[in-house]
Formats: sequence, structure tokens, C-alpha cells
Amino acid sequence: MRKYKIAFIGAGNVATHLATELKKCGHEIVQIYSRTEKSAKQLADSLETNYTISKESITEEADIYFVALKDSAVDEVLSEINFGAKLLVHCSGSLPMKVLSEFAKNYGVFYPMQTFSKSRKVDFKKIPIFVEASSEENLHILEEIANEVSESVTVLDSEKRKSLHIAAVFACNFANHCYAMAAKYLESKELPFEILRPLIMETAQKVQELHPKDAQTGPAIRFDENIINSHLSQLKEMPDLQELYNSISKSIFEHHQEKQ
Amino acid sequence: MRKYKIAFIGAGNVATHLATELKKCGHEIVQIYSRTEKSAKQLADSLETNYTISKESITEEADIYFVALKDSAVDEVLSEINFGAKLLVHCSGSLPMKVLSEFAKNYGVFYPMQTFSKSRKVDFKKIPIFVEASSEENLHILEEIANEVSESVTVLDSEKRKSLHIAAVFACNFANHCYAMAAKYLESKELPFEILRPLIMETAQKVQELHPKDAQTGPAIRFDENIINSHLSQLKEMPDLQELYNSISKSIFEHHQEKQ
Repeated sequence: MRKYKIAFIGAGNVATHLATELKKCGHEIVQIYSRTEKSAKQLADSLETNYTISKESITEEADIYFVALKDSAVDEVLSEINFGAKLLVHCSGSLPMKVLSEFAKNYGVFYPMQTFSKSRKVDFKKIPIFVEASSEENLHILEEIANEVSESVTVLDSEKRKSLHIAAVFACNFANHCYAMAAKYLESKELPFEILRPLIMETAQKVQELHPKDAQTGPAIRFDENIINSHLSQLKEMPDLQELYNSISKSIFEHHQEKQ
Repeated sequence: MRKYKIAFIGAGNVATHLATELKKCGHEIVQIYSRTEKSAKQLADSLETNYTISKESITEEADIYFVALKDSAVDEVLSEINFGAKLLVHCSGSLPMKVLSEFAKNYGVFYPMQTFSKSRKVDFKKIPIFVEASSEENLHILEEIANEVSESVTVLDSEKRKSLHIAAVFACNFANHCYAMAAKYLESKELPFEILRPLIMETAQKVQELHPKDAQTGPAIRFDENIINSHLSQLKEMPDLQELYNSISKSIFEHHQEKQ
């Protein structure tokens, strides 16, 4: 496998995990750029490489530039950089590939669909990676790199990737917020969040085999109005939780009606 | 350990899993009652015991009666039965223990906090069980039985158990609904739900170590309005998903503000 010189633009959760993994596979991480010096330095130190916080100093030595920024920052950060014929790749679920066409001739997307927190190690082999590129040749490069880090690599166009990202927001970010609301409520009652951990694991494990519509349990799916009303009444003291309880229960109810 | 004669009132998901487990521990399941003959027969057959669909025929031979019905059915089903001095136990998260006081002298609660689907085996040892009883002696009986089936047994009063149940609805039922909405959306775009499974597992695994507020990722927590608005606009074709996306994102945003 060819090994590349890679620069990272961005030093957040995705950059941290991906750069670390690419280095492990033998690629050379030649530079980290971030507007936040602390993040840039931290990642560069852990990879034993250089960093910069000045766009003018972004290296010209890399073969591939991975952009792992929040979507709204991409345009602004890239605007004054000339990537020439280098391969410019973003890691976003939502951003169309085409946004890169004004900054480089060769470009593509490398989207690892996972929830990354800096403090937590992940097994990259299990992370589905979705790739797309401006040419067959670029696609081949990205597929090759993706196959080095993961067992699950799929070529997917920008539109489908965006749909996937929306689904991922529901399945991951929104599910985690449900955990957070549970924790908030328990803690207000002086009960520890820890006691929910086995339930959370089983809820996720169930849908590894079942479809979630067949895994649904609880008062909303049983139309158990007594419980629902009693819960809503008890949640009066926390209107934000009450509102969320109401919206989601209504949605479960409606979704269940559709199925019938 | 003393082994008891146990009757089940109810033959749904909780009854099925709990009765099966109690039989494994050496207790005798003497009868299953359900208003639905199919459920009663199915569970009784699998336990090689008898069933009835007539309240008048509920056995007097049991030492303990486990009530695993939806909360709204408990009053109606129990109303014409005389339990005398037998131990009457319900398995509900939300129902106060006191509701049983009009039907029996000895009563208690045995609440296994888990999401049960008939088609899926669970490891009962890992399921937290919360018990409460009308007397020390009854509590001792329920604790002893709970300790046979689970490694995690806690004595908890009705009020705290109700709070716990509300939290469980968020962490399990609502999280699963997030998976279901993700599946619905993916399938509308001809993408398979399966590709979300690793993400769902990691999302649950993260909070086995981290607190969910430290595990939150995604556009809402980053205040990435570009993505949020673009997602909301793409969800126009599915107003129910759009509404839910909006409510939950708003809640993530507000929750994050509180923390700061």
C-alpha cells in the first residue's frame, strides 16, 4: 500500500481519532492546522508532528489534506489556501462534495460515521466509512486508505450521505440526549445515572438483531394513558423534560398507528 | 433457599421473561392467568403448567402472585379476587405499592428494570431489580427471590421507583424511538437500517464510562445552525420527523446552555 503525507485542517474529535489511526497505518501526518492553538498543539504533540494556527503557514508538502472542521467553518478556513493539484478531502456527513471544487482540482469525501469524544478510544475497524471522490483515481486512493482503517467501506454520493447523516443524528445524538435527560431527571431525585447503564446497553443490543419498530416497549406504545398522564404530571416541575416527553410519546403513538 | 409456588397474573413480555427465570431457579409456576387465551396458553405451554382466562378460576394454591399487567388493567383484573394472606406482588415501575393494599394483606413490588421483547433472550443476572414490600418479612422474601435471579437488587420506595421509571422511559423507550425514526428516514431513502448498528452500539457503550452530557456530539451541541437548518429543510417531506428534530435539537441546545 502506498503511504501518504497527510495534513489535517482541524483538530477536533474527528481529526484526533482519524489522524491517530492514519498514523498507525503508516501514513505520515506532516502537520496539524487549527485556529485553536491548544487543540492544534495537543494533537500535534500526540502525533509527534508540527502544527500551525496560521493559514499562511499551512504546509505545501502534503499529498492529501483532510478537512475535519465544523461545516460552517469550511468555506472560511479554506478560502485563502491554494491546494493546486493536491487531494483535498472533507470528513463531513452533511456537506456536499462539490463545496471543495472551488479550492482544489482533486477532491473527495471520507466520512467515518461514528460519535467521537477525545477521551474515548474507538475500534476504527468497526466504523463504517463512506467515501466519494472527484475522479476514479481519487476514489481509488480514498477507498484504499479507508480499507486500511475499517472493515466497512462504502462509496456513497453526497445526497445519500446527507440522508445518512440525518439518520445518524437521530440514532446517536438524539438517543444520547435521551440518556442525558434521564440522567438530569434522576439526579434531580438524588438517584445515580449509573443504574440505567444495563438498560441502555440492552436497548442498543436489541436493535443489533431486531428492527427498532419490533423492539419498542413502554407506556407510549401500549397507549397506557394512565402512566403517560401520571408521568407528565410528575414532570411539571421540569417543563423542558415535560415538553420532550410529550413530543416523543406523541410521535411513538403516531408511528405505531402508521404501522397498523 | 425456600422454593415457592408462584402464579402469574398477566402473560406479556415481563411475565414471560420473569416466569421463565423463576422456574429456572427452582420455583414452581403453578398457573398463568391472562385475559388473552393465546398469550396464556403460549406461556403456560412453555413452562409446562396450567393456564386460565377466567378470574374465578385463578388458583388458590400459590404462595405468591406476580401481577405483570399494564398499570391501567391492574385494578380491574384484581378487583374480584380474594388473595387472603397470600403475597401479592406487582412488577410495575410506576404503580405505587399501596394500590395492592385493598386486595391483600401481604403485598410488595418486584420491578425488573429492563426492556423485554418476547422474541429476545436477556441475561437476567444483569437486570437491576427494585423491591419494596408491606412488611420486613415480605421484603425479605422478595429480596431473596430477586437475589436468585439478579446480581443487582435494590430496595426502593414507590416514589423513587416512579422517578426511576420516568428516567427509564427516556433512556430506553425514547432512545429506541430515535432509532425507529432513523430507520424510517433511511428506509424512505432506500438505505438499510443496518448501517447504523455500529453507531448505535458505540453511542450506548460510551455512556457506560462517560456521563451522557460529556458524550454528546453532533450539530445541535456545536450550535451548527447551517447543518441544523439544512437538515430541517430536508425533513420538510416528513413533518413528524421534522417536528421531532426541532424539539430535540432545541432541548440539546438549552441543556447545553444550562451547563455552561
